[in-house]
Amino acid sequence: MSLRVALIGYGFMGAAHSVGWRQAPAVFDLPEDVERAVLVGRNAAAVAQAAQKWGWAESATDWREVIARDDIDIVDIVTPGDSHAEIAIAALDAGKHVLCEKPLANTVAEAEAMTAAADRAAQSGVRAMVGFTYRRVPAVTLLRDLVAAGKVGTVQQVRAAYRQDWLVDPEMPLAWRLQKEHAGSGALGDIGAHIIDMTQFVTGQRIASVSGTMDTIVKQRPLLGSGSGLSGTASDGYGDVTVDDVALFTGRLESGALASFEATRFATGRKNALTLEVSGDRGALAFDLEDLNTLQFYDRTAPDELQGFTRILVTEAEHPYVAAWWPAGHMLGYEHGFVHQAKDLVEAIASGQDAHPTFEEGLAVQRVLASVEASAVRDSAWVDALATVDAVEKTGQES
Amino acid sequence: MSLRVALIGYGFMGAAHSVGWRQAPAVFDLPEDVERAVLVGRNAAAVAQAAQKWGWAESATDWREVIARDDIDIVDIVTPGDSHAEIAIAALDAGKHVLCEKPLANTVAEAEAMTAAADRAAQSGVRAMVGFTYRRVPAVTLLRDLVAAGKVGTVQQVRAAYRQDWLVDPEMPLAWRLQKEHAGSGALGDIGAHIIDMTQFVTGQRIASVSGTMDTIVKQRPLLGSGSGLSGTASDGYGDVTVDDVALFTGRLESGALASFEATRFATGRKNALTLEVSGDRGALAFDLEDLNTLQFYDRTAPDELQGFTRILVTEAEHPYVAAWWPAGHMLGYEHGFVHQAKDLVEAIASGQDAHPTFEEGLAVQRVLASVEASAVRDSAWVDALATVDAVEKTGQES
Amino acid sequence: MSLRVALIGYGFMGAAHSVGWRQAPAVFDLPEDVERAVLVGRNAAAVAQAAQKWGWAESATDWREVIARDDIDIVDIVTPGDSHAEIAIAALDAGKHVLCEKPLANTVAEAEAMTAAADRAAQSGVRAMVGFTYRRVPAVTLLRDLVAAGKVGTVQQVRAAYRQDWLVDPEMPLAWRLQKEHAGSGALGDIGAHIIDMTQFVTGQRIASVSGTMDTIVKQRPLLGSGSGLSGTASDGYGDVTVDDVALFTGRLESGALASFEATRFATGRKNALTLEVSGDRGALAFDLEDLNTLQFYDRTAPDELQGFTRILVTEAEHPYVAAWWPAGHMLGYEHGFVHQAKDLVEAIASGQDAHPTFEEGLAVQRVLASVEASAVRDSAWVDALATVDAVEKTGQES
Amino acid sequence: MSLRVALIGYGFMGAAHSVGWRQAPAVFDLPEDVERAVLVGRNAAAVAQAAQKWGWAESATDWREVIARDDIDIVDIVTPGDSHAEIAIAALDAGKHVLCEKPLANTVAEAEAMTAAADRAAQSGVRAMVGFTYRRVPAVTLLRDLVAAGKVGTVQQVRAAYRQDWLVDPEMPLAWRLQKEHAGSGALGDIGAHIIDMTQFVTGQRIASVSGTMDTIVKQRPLLGSGSGLSGTASDGYGDVTVDDVALFTGRLESGALASFEATRFATGRKNALTLEVSGDRGALAFDLEDLNTLQFYDRTAPDELQGFTRILVTEAEHPYVAAWWPAGHMLGYEHGFVHQAKDLVEAIASGQDAHPTFEEGLAVQRVLASVEASAVRDSAWVDALATVDAVEKTGQES
Repeated sequence: MSLRVALIGYGFMGAAHSVGWRQAPAVFDLPEDVERAVLVGRNAAAVAQAAQKWGWAESATDWREVIARDDIDIVDIVTPGDSHAEIAIAALDAGKHVLCEKPLANTVAEAEAMTAAADRAAQSGVRAMVGFTYRRVPAVTLLRDLVAAGKVGTVQQVRAAYRQDWLVDPEMPLAWRLQKEHAGSGALGDIGAHIIDMTQFVTGQRIASVSGTMDTIVKQRPLLGSGSGLSGTASDGYGDVTVDDVALFTGRLESGALASFEATRFATGRKNALTLEVSGDRGALAFDLEDLNTLQFYDRTAPDELQGFTRILVTEAEHPYVAAWWPAGHMLGYEHGFVHQAKDLVEAIASGQDAHPTFEEGLAVQRVLASVEASAVRDSAWVDALATVDAVEKTGQES
Repeated sequence: MSLRVALIGYGFMGAAHSVGWRQAPAVFDLPEDVERAVLVGRNAAAVAQAAQKWGWAESATDWREVIARDDIDIVDIVTPGDSHAEIAIAALDAGKHVLCEKPLANTVAEAEAMTAAADRAAQSGVRAMVGFTYRRVPAVTLLRDLVAAGKVGTVQQVRAAYRQDWLVDPEMPLAWRLQKEHAGSGALGDIGAHIIDMTQFVTGQRIASVSGTMDTIVKQRPLLGSGSGLSGTASDGYGDVTVDDVALFTGRLESGALASFEATRFATGRKNALTLEVSGDRGALAFDLEDLNTLQFYDRTAPDELQGFTRILVTEAEHPYVAAWWPAGHMLGYEHGFVHQAKDLVEAIASGQDAHPTFEEGLAVQRVLASVEASAVRDSAWVDALATVDAVEKTGQES
Repeated sequence: MSLRVALIGYGFMGAAHSVGWRQAPAVFDLPEDVERAVLVGRNAAAVAQAAQKWGWAESATDWREVIARDDIDIVDIVTPGDSHAEIAIAALDAGKHVLCEKPLANTVAEAEAMTAAADRAAQSGVRAMVGFTYRRVPAVTLLRDLVAAGKVGTVQQVRAAYRQDWLVDPEMPLAWRLQKEHAGSGALGDIGAHIIDMTQFVTGQRIASVSGTMDTIVKQRPLLGSGSGLSGTASDGYGDVTVDDVALFTGRLESGALASFEATRFATGRKNALTLEVSGDRGALAFDLEDLNTLQFYDRTAPDELQGFTRILVTEAEHPYVAAWWPAGHMLGYEHGFVHQAKDLVEAIASGQDAHPTFEEGLAVQRVLASVEASAVRDSAWVDALATVDAVEKTGQES
Repeated sequence: MSLRVALIGYGFMGAAHSVGWRQAPAVFDLPEDVERAVLVGRNAAAVAQAAQKWGWAESATDWREVIARDDIDIVDIVTPGDSHAEIAIAALDAGKHVLCEKPLANTVAEAEAMTAAADRAAQSGVRAMVGFTYRRVPAVTLLRDLVAAGKVGTVQQVRAAYRQDWLVDPEMPLAWRLQKEHAGSGALGDIGAHIIDMTQFVTGQRIASVSGTMDTIVKQRPLLGSGSGLSGTASDGYGDVTVDDVALFTGRLESGALASFEATRFATGRKNALTLEVSGDRGALAFDLEDLNTLQFYDRTAPDELQGFTRILVTEAEHPYVAAWWPAGHMLGYEHGFVHQAKDLVEAIASGQDAHPTFEEGLAVQRVLASVEASAVRDSAWVDALATVDAVEKTGQES
């Protein structure tokens, strides 16, 4: 018998998740078959066309109806963040395994409710997973494995950054992603979430406290004309950008080790530069998503004259996920993480084990995000991220 | 109506071509639908299992029967090189479009016969294409486009190398690929063919003459025990390696420009390092397959103090093939070339245009390969590669 | 007539400054001759030996006597920071040109007094310069020139880091540099000062405010046995490290642009990695001291498909300082900055112009350092760096 | 007592050797003092000015008179290649230690005579050394040491290239270096000599045979007007370039291992790119002169999942020559090799040991150069480089 998937949402992330479900059974030997059963979206014609192109058996417009169906096993949610909580909780309560795109939710409160739903569902063997796919880039998984194996020794510092540049142009128009009422958050929530999760993933520690600064570098942008997509011009006037486009913060891990973070869309020339460096008393490991098939490893235990950063091409059969793909030296790309994610979720379901990152791990990211926001409005004061609730509530109390 | 594909062969290349046919219609807007109709292989059980895993509707064991079927439009050949000629000619004569893995054939004579068949078939609108997929790595296509646009000016030198290291270990056993009677050729024919084709592709010129050296660095290797796959040990004794494992040659393009070539499996630490550098009087372009999402461009027309190699991340919508994939800065991998190949073949069929590389272009590569072999056995004397026939014949005359 | 130099101090920096004075007249065409007149240090035998080796005509043990001599024109100070103020003020008051190693002083108050002395001396044509030599690495000077020429447009973000790893080992003993009473400051004052100055230099803006965190990652280290240099062992017991070994801070330039800073000695595998990246709406520039002959430039005004970081080899005659050295492609090293510094000071003296960085510029760095310290003890609250006085005073008021 | 040096020649190489003699005693603890006694050149005024600037005690115009002086111990020859033999033999016969710039001579016959003179002089303790300074870049010396220590195992392939681009522009005028009667040789003799020596140095093996091609890519260039330096224009007409500007050759080491070589001035964008890669069955080592403070090491004996090229920053005290310079992570540059050369020659003289590369090693390079020329005029036939005499003689016999 096979696992039947419903994918809710069909934008860019819908395409990526579709590749995951399409390729996973053709590349890996999965313990269960997978069927792309139904693609769900509000525009019937558009979602039908996407379903046809991406190879989904059916399309539908009402996610509640789909969740109610008996023949759906997995609900994969790639809608905007403000709908995650409602859909995921409904799906879990209906006994469906859930894969939910990151960030888990727009608020800590939502994430808490989702985690509670996941806990309830877990009692009947239902799995809930958050889509931090970058964990499944082989070099990142290997980085985590090497930290866990003691290759860097005691972690002393972490540097994490996610740098893009698509807002550098001040005449780039005021898209919905730049308006808080639609997007919830800016650079912090969208790309900052990735480096928070990755830091917690590779160190095996939570970020315990943070001090941060957020900024909106370009504060007004051209309004989009009605119905004009990205084609608006300055003649339409200017509107306020209401989300952050850069967030800089410092954190402390549970061990006390320092970590520095940058999430920005103003790093001219950096397209998708998620970089991570973990330093310890026995070595260091460094990763760059723009060079995703490699991992840099510095071994302080090597002979002095031979020490240096080793550029490991993470394409060997010994490396995580790689054996199922191509021979050594053959590159993987962006969408492979989605294939690995689909594989891992299927294996978790089949084996009755937690599917990481769990909703609890997603909630932990949410708490850090809220803590950074809280610190930013408090003159960068340090905020306890293990206990934090939403910055909005906290700062509401103060203003 | 859709194009129905038969794939003959189901090894590593079968997996790669399957990804091509699976992903192309889901990623690109093809002018014709594509169906993975039948996978063909000699072992009925194994090919059936592969067909199931890779999503082919049927499997079959007799390629002649499949070629005879009316409901097959495209025959995709990924069998060992010694069967290319027979299958491709039969398919073309049966009116099927043919995609044939590289190198086109094991001899110039075979390649000539195949090209003749392709010419006959072309008169009734049938296409014949050779699978030099690296042409379709976006950075390589961009490199060609920039040369064609005059960005390097007059080409003055080309450096091409394909370096791997899987034979470095002298105790690596004597696999069939190291025996001439099975493999036909060694490093030269397998990986040297790629850099010959790529040089001709990006410069738009044929390699007119060559002087070369071939070597077998490790001349004897452990025999494999009977039925033991790669598990043989030295106790089985040693046998002769009868193909080259390194080929070094110099060529002249039609314009007289010099090109240097290295194909080796003894480049310790280089896993799949196909590198190409084209130098001209206005600029230079450099590519490395181990960093396949980038292209290096040196612009001699830039202001003196700003000149340098620009590392272009070939992931922008403006770059070849990229718009259909992911946003800027999101990496592509090895198999994407196969997706592009499938797309381009379908478009060529739909539009009634030649599908490049044509068999004639494949034959041109074959002539260079034969010329290098001929030069190697003649004390590295220069051999005319535009007119060459097989080295075996030539050298036969001399011995 | 020639300029006669007295160099006070003969440690590592004495060697570097000696190279500067030795090479400058042999490489550049200076407007005035330079004589290495006298090397000053407390240990008569040791300083005499150093003078002999480094080519100083005399040695001496009393800097006051040397400053009083009529035949000394330039006093070059490379003693520990706690003596800078006394020597520099005395020298300036005696009418000598002064070159003072960075950081200018150990406190803002000292730096203010030194700047006042420099202002007084300037009225009679005496020059005072601070030794931030990294400004004179050709790639850094070029970076500044390109920012000034508008190549990055409006500066939107700056990232600056100085990463070393010589304290990673917890058993590294408690040297004097790790004790506040001797060293004044740790990573912040020593290497953080460089990235503060460089940021202000290349942007032409002061850092207006900061929020920071400082830490001592290894808090206790093995005591050195008496008279044992670095040979102490754990049997001597452990003592407290009383300076910071990592400082992380965020700043705002006068324009409001954000800048992030890291000064650390716990970046495992990073030996002397001063990195700087300036992002603007027209381009970006990036520098790495471990690759000091290159500068990375991203030009957003280039055609879309050709954009990327250009790796400029800063070894062309068109580049700052380079024409006097070697042909294109020949590398410069660490000490070349000291040669350029000597040349520039001589030229400033000869032409009667300010020698940058002036003491006022050194004082500006000092204010930022003090502001970071003040922020760090105030829960990372933002501190105005344009007006700041010493952190010690401020925090004294609070405790 | 100190060693007194006479430097004959005062062009670019005179500047570089002067740095060597000036810096060596100030940086290293030499067993003998060194004095820059006399600088020799034909133009009295110009050589006097250079002597003054570079710190030579005297200048002179007649090298024979200088060689005859009793107070000269070392004769350092940096004149054009056609005068090396005469000066070096005279100096050796006069009992002076000789340092002679590379290539040793313009012909094998000259080099043989020089080697004979060195052998005679050696009997009275006189040293003769060739100036292949790149051997003394710390990363190159380390590379050699690691090969000798077995870190790459058995050498299986070597790749060596020296790429520059200063002839790419076809309108670059016909300087004397491009005329055989003045320069003797082109790219091969000038930069090809370096990679031949470096290959022999690091492998400890001679190049036993070669097959090569030489070319003059731009065959005619604008003539220089009379007395006009590099300022000639096309209006002066065009003349023939009579030396090679690119040489491509393949060699075999004594062990039979293959080595490939490229010496070119048409590598657009490559300024001084001497690259070397040595591959063996236990590892590989790679060097690039444009990144001269680093060495890449691939260790095949490391755990599979951790293998990769390690980028060793060759700036540690454990590395060759480095301890006398700066702390870890502080870069060295081009001229440091000349300082190391001066130091090593002084130490060899003091200790009574051979100063490498000896004239015999320089002669070995000369034989390879002549063999490449001989092969190039014989349709790239393989030539025995261990026994070769001058190509001119050989080819003369054949034409």
